[in-house]
Amino acid sequence: MQETLNYISENKQRFVDELFELLRIPSISADPAYKNDVLKCADVVAEHLKNAGADNVEVCQTKGYPIVYGEKILNTDLPTVLVYGHYDVQPADPLELWIKPPFEPYIEKTELHPEGAIFARGSADDKGQFFMHLKAFEAMMKTNALPCNVKFILEGEEEVGSVSLGDWVNENKEKLSCDCILISDTHIYSNEQPTVTTGLRGLSYVEVEVEGPNRDLHSGLYGGAVPNPIHVLSRMIAKLIDEDGHITIDGFYDNVETVSDSDRADMNKLKDNPEEFKKSIGLNGVEGEKGYTTLERTSIRPTLDCNGIWGGYTGEGAKTVIPSKAFAKISMRLVPYQTPEEITEKFTKYFEKIAPENVKVKVTPHHGGMPY
Amino acid sequence: MQETLNYISENKQRFVDELFELLRIPSISADPAYKNDVLKCADVVAEHLKNAGADNVEVCQTKGYPIVYGEKILNTDLPTVLVYGHYDVQPADPLELWIKPPFEPYIEKTELHPEGAIFARGSADDKGQFFMHLKAFEAMMKTNALPCNVKFILEGEEEVGSVSLGDWVNENKEKLSCDCILISDTHIYSNEQPTVTTGLRGLSYVEVEVEGPNRDLHSGLYGGAVPNPIHVLSRMIAKLIDEDGHITIDGFYDNVETVSDSDRADMNKLKDNPEEFKKSIGLNGVEGEKGYTTLERTSIRPTLDCNGIWGGYTGEGAKTVIPSKAFAKISMRLVPYQTPEEITEKFTKYFEKIAPENVKVKVTPHHGGMPY
Repeated sequence: MQETLNYISENKQRFVDELFELLRIPSISADPAYKNDVLKCADVVAEHLKNAGADNVEVCQTKGYPIVYGEKILNTDLPTVLVYGHYDVQPADPLELWIKPPFEPYIEKTELHPEGAIFARGSADDKGQFFMHLKAFEAMMKTNALPCNVKFILEGEEEVGSVSLGDWVNENKEKLSCDCILISDTHIYSNEQPTVTTGLRGLSYVEVEVEGPNRDLHSGLYGGAVPNPIHVLSRMIAKLIDEDGHITIDGFYDNVETVSDSDRADMNKLKDNPEEFKKSIGLNGVEGEKGYTTLERTSIRPTLDCNGIWGGYTGEGAKTVIPSKAFAKISMRLVPYQTPEEITEKFTKYFEKIAPENVKVKVTPHHGGMPY
Repeated sequence: MQETLNYISENKQRFVDELFELLRIPSISADPAYKNDVLKCADVVAEHLKNAGADNVEVCQTKGYPIVYGEKILNTDLPTVLVYGHYDVQPADPLELWIKPPFEPYIEKTELHPEGAIFARGSADDKGQFFMHLKAFEAMMKTNALPCNVKFILEGEEEVGSVSLGDWVNENKEKLSCDCILISDTHIYSNEQPTVTTGLRGLSYVEVEVEGPNRDLHSGLYGGAVPNPIHVLSRMIAKLIDEDGHITIDGFYDNVETVSDSDRADMNKLKDNPEEFKKSIGLNGVEGEKGYTTLERTSIRPTLDCNGIWGGYTGEGAKTVIPSKAFAKISMRLVPYQTPEEITEKFTKYFEKIAPENVKVKVTPHHGGMPY
């Protein structure tokens, strides 16, 4: 053990330098403009696995971005740990809110991180985490201290719904057989409270379009006489959640798992500090579904959030336009027994139902994810 | 007269070529990125005035973009016509809806324009119109047929509220003295119906910002527990107009001029074709303030329209973000006895009043304009 710890101390600066190199690659899977960066990132990750001592390292092609695989089988009698991570990152918009450029990592001490933390897009989701596991593996390999078999799968589509992962896992069941899976891509409850996540909400994600007039109109000539798609979309979004924070989509809660009172009492024992929570995000008041705590609202209850909205003139200054179309991206977090297909269908029906007759609406599903 | 008409026929192609040159200049006053183009456009317009035969041509500096002046005083006993126009244009967004690039003019025959029309940003607002007056002036000058004195003022800030025009006009009252003003920058009721506009609605234009959390949050971790500024903004926009199409801002209609029943009856004699109107903009139903016709809604009644909205992730694909802020641009069309100052103040008070306590809102006034 001491030898391994020494190896880590001696190589710490190199580890950080290598992670910084990885963080400099803008591997944004959601935006096709970054395709080459995502592909390059997969190759770099594969190199790291090889250098760390993994065997059978492979950049596995899929219909989307590749999955990087590597393994070290010491002895088939030993238990096997499968490490999952992802090398793609979220888009970095809005860029103007970054203190420093998102793909130029740096270390800084803050109130929350008195010992210093690495700041960059992907440093905490998920390059930093899987790199930690990869370097722990390297340290044990180089000091002959690995106590078990290890397999790595590092994908490049987590931020767009892991489109290819399901098929690939099904096609590679034997190769991926293991005794436990280690994922560091979830929440830590607080810096003082180690957290093991035992369940995650699923996702249904749609893009909606509302079309009023068939072209942009001058509000001086048409204002007050035609359906303005921004107003229509605003009214429709306002109707999706009622005053008690309930989602109004027909049948939305039909399959929701009811958590028992005793389980709810258990989870609410977690030391919760509402004032600290509000302060950490600059709010003077939280909100959400009536009858549930903040912890429950963000875990055992399904939710709906508009993640983006746009329409009309959004540049500098003023333009007196009534746009032809307005758009929004809307996601719903799901709990056990809801499915993305079910909820996307219910959303679509409801959204079409509440649309006024003098506009056209279109709902386009993006990726979904099962809750578990 | 015949000589003048001959001059026009002989020079028609040159006139069109010169107008095309003018249309190629992207003189977008709302966007500082086009500053040099707006300034260049002023110089080009001044050259045209000189070449047409105007005296005392001047590019008059203001705090904003210059006003181009030119005149021909034949005889102070003759009546004087003052021609007003503007050489700046609206922004061309959204670019993807243009069939051809906005600053590459072309002529095409369409159903609405069987003899062909010029398509380009500014061709009908207002470069095409003032150029027509300028070339009519040239034709009369070159054939010694000008029957009156003529003055031109061509400004470069019409699309941003004519910020500098008021002061400049006040400072140049004598220079601008005239018997009538000719403006071709308003609506034509139909291609078959010559139209003289006798009044125009004013404008109050504001930008609003709603801030929820102090930074963008991951909807998987925070969704359902915090105020999402897109939802809050949507609900607030939905509250600005009630189900009868009335604007709900406190005191909004206090000073609105009530048009007499007989005047309303007169204006509704205008041949109106609701089916044609709907078809022309691809709608199966109009909407607006209850109790008024489409013609009344777009002329004698004040209105409110959201001209732009944005917030969160608006790029390709999906991002599960709860944004910190959401924004909208909102304009109100005013009728006599409402003023931009009054209405902007009433809007601001009301918007702050309907904001939930757990968000911050900011209202920034853009330009306004008096109705007359």
